[in-house]
Amino acid sequence: MASSRTTRLLSLPRRAFSSSSLKFDAGVSMVQGASRGIGLEFVKQLLEKNDKGHVVATCRNPDASTGLAHLKDKFADRLKVLPLDLTVESSIEASASSIKETYGHLNLLINTSGILSIPEVLQPETTLNKLEKSALMLTYEINAVGPILVIKHMWPLLKVGGGFGTERSNAVVASLSARVGSIGDNHLGGWHSYRSSKTALNQLSKTAAVEFARKKDPIVCILLHPGTVDTDLSKPFQKNVPKEKLFSKEFSVQKLLSIIDNVKSNDNGKFFAWDGQEIPW
Amino acid sequence: MASSRTTRLLSLPRRAFSSSSLKFDAGVSMVQGASRGIGLEFVKQLLEKNDKGHVVATCRNPDASTGLAHLKDKFADRLKVLPLDLTVESSIEASASSIKETYGHLNLLINTSGILSIPEVLQPETTLNKLEKSALMLTYEINAVGPILVIKHMWPLLKVGGGFGTERSNAVVASLSARVGSIGDNHLGGWHSYRSSKTALNQLSKTAAVEFARKKDPIVCILLHPGTVDTDLSKPFQKNVPKEKLFSKEFSVQKLLSIIDNVKSNDNGKFFAWDGQEIPW
Repeated sequence: MASSRTTRLLSLPRRAFSSSSLKFDAGVSMVQGASRGIGLEFVKQLLEKNDKGHVVATCRNPDASTGLAHLKDKFADRLKVLPLDLTVESSIEASASSIKETYGHLNLLINTSGILSIPEVLQPETTLNKLEKSALMLTYEINAVGPILVIKHMWPLLKVGGGFGTERSNAVVASLSARVGSIGDNHLGGWHSYRSSKTALNQLSKTAAVEFARKKDPIVCILLHPGTVDTDLSKPFQKNVPKEKLFSKEFSVQKLLSIIDNVKSNDNGKFFAWDGQEIPW
Repeated sequence: MASSRTTRLLSLPRRAFSSSSLKFDAGVSMVQGASRGIGLEFVKQLLEKNDKGHVVATCRNPDASTGLAHLKDKFADRLKVLPLDLTVESSIEASASSIKETYGHLNLLINTSGILSIPEVLQPETTLNKLEKSALMLTYEINAVGPILVIKHMWPLLKVGGGFGTERSNAVVASLSARVGSIGDNHLGGWHSYRSSKTALNQLSKTAAVEFARKKDPIVCILLHPGTVDTDLSKPFQKNVPKEKLFSKEFSVQKLLSIIDNVKSNDNGKFFAWDGQEIPW
C-alpha cells in the first residue's frame, strides 16, 4: 500500500505541490449539494474526522446555507465553499477551475444533491396516470445529468489526486443513488420520475467506472444508498417508515463514509447500501 | 385457455363491439415508430401473418413514409396510419382518442422508436469527456419519456382489450430496449446518453408492469433487445459487427413476434433478447 502511494506521489504533476505540500496531507474532498441534509453532514464529518483534510462544499446558493456558514466559522482554513448549479454546466466548470487553482487535485467527490418532490411543482407519482413529461425531464436533469457532468469536469482533478493523503490507493467518486433506483428490486412501483432518474444515474456512473478502469485511472466510482434518512427530502414520505428504519443523517453518513474509506479497486462500478450490502441493478 | 378467453369476451365493455364484431376477430395492434426500420417491419409482418388483424401504425410524419404508403396500398382495410410525435404529448392523446373511436380497444402496443445518432446533432459518446447535456436530455426525451407516455395513454385501451382476438390471455406492451441499456452487462462503456435512456426505459416499463400486475390488468409489459439489426439506426456503427451478428430486420422481427406471441403472465416486467434469453438489468 505504502509503496503504491509512493508511486502515486512520484507521478503527481508538480503543480499539486507548488504552494504548500503540508496543505494536502489529508487529501481534498468535494461535496456537491452541501447546503443541507446529507450533503452538509458529509462536509461536517469530513472536517471533523481528519484535522488536516480539506473540503470543498458546493451548492446552488451558498449565502442561503446557515449550516455551511456555521462550519465556515469553525473550519475557515480547511473549508472552501463554491457556488455550483447542477443545471448550469459552466458553473460546474468554474468550480473545477477554482479547485484546480487552489488545490491542483481532488481525492474524493461525493455527489449528494437530488430532487424527489417540490411543493406545487413535483410530486412522486403514485400511478402511471400521473406521469408528466416536465416532471420526468426535470428529475432526470437534476438527479442524473447534473451528477455525471460534475464527474466529467472533476475527472482530471481526481486522476491527478488518486488516493493521495488518504488511507486509500484510489480517489473515490461516490454518488448518492437510492434503492428505489434498482430495477431488480422494484416490487412496489410508483415514483416513476425519481426511480428512473436514479436508475439512469446508476448506468451513467457504471459507464464512467468502466472507462476509469480501462484507462487505469486511480479512481473508484461507486453508488450509495443512504437508507431512508430524516431530511427535508424524505420528510413528506416518512409516515409509513418504521422508526428503526428512519436514520439520522449522522448515522447514515458515518456508515457511508466507512464504505468510502474502505473501498477497494474491485468495488469500482458497484452499488452499495448504507450497510455495505450490494444492491442489484 | 379457451375458457379464459370467453371470460374476457364477456367482461369486455359493449362499446368494443358496437360497430362490427368481426372487425376485431384478430385483435388490434399498434406500432409506434412505424415509418421505417424495425417498426415498419413489425407492421408488415403483423398484417401478413394474420389476415384478420388490424394494425395502427404511428410515426411523426406519415406522409414521408414510402414504406407505410406501400403497405397502405396493399392492406387498406386493416391498416390505419396516424401521426404521432413522441415529443408532443397531445399528439399521443389524439392517437389514443382516434384508436378508441375506431376500435374501442388495443391488444398489442409495440414501442419501436429510438434515437442513437443524428448527423451534426447527436453522436454516441466514446468517452465521458464528450458528454453534453443537450444530448443526454434529447435522448432521454425520445427513448424513455416518449414510450412511457405512449404506454400511459394506451393503457385504458389495453385494459379493455386484453388478449381478445389473439392466442394470448393478455394484451402485450413490448418496448424496444437494447442490451447496452443493461447496467449489469455493461463491460465496454461509452454511448452514455443512449445507454442511460434505455436503462431508464427499462425502469419505467418495469414500474408500469408492477402496477398492471397489482391492479390485475390483463396486460403483460416487456422489454425487447432486437439484436444489432441492419437499419438506419445501426448503419454508422456496423463496421465492427461480425456478419453473422448483423441481423436483417425480417429475421429480428420474426424472433421478437414469436416472443410476443408466446408471452405468459409471469413474463410481465421482464427484459428479453431476440432469442428469448433474459437480459440482466
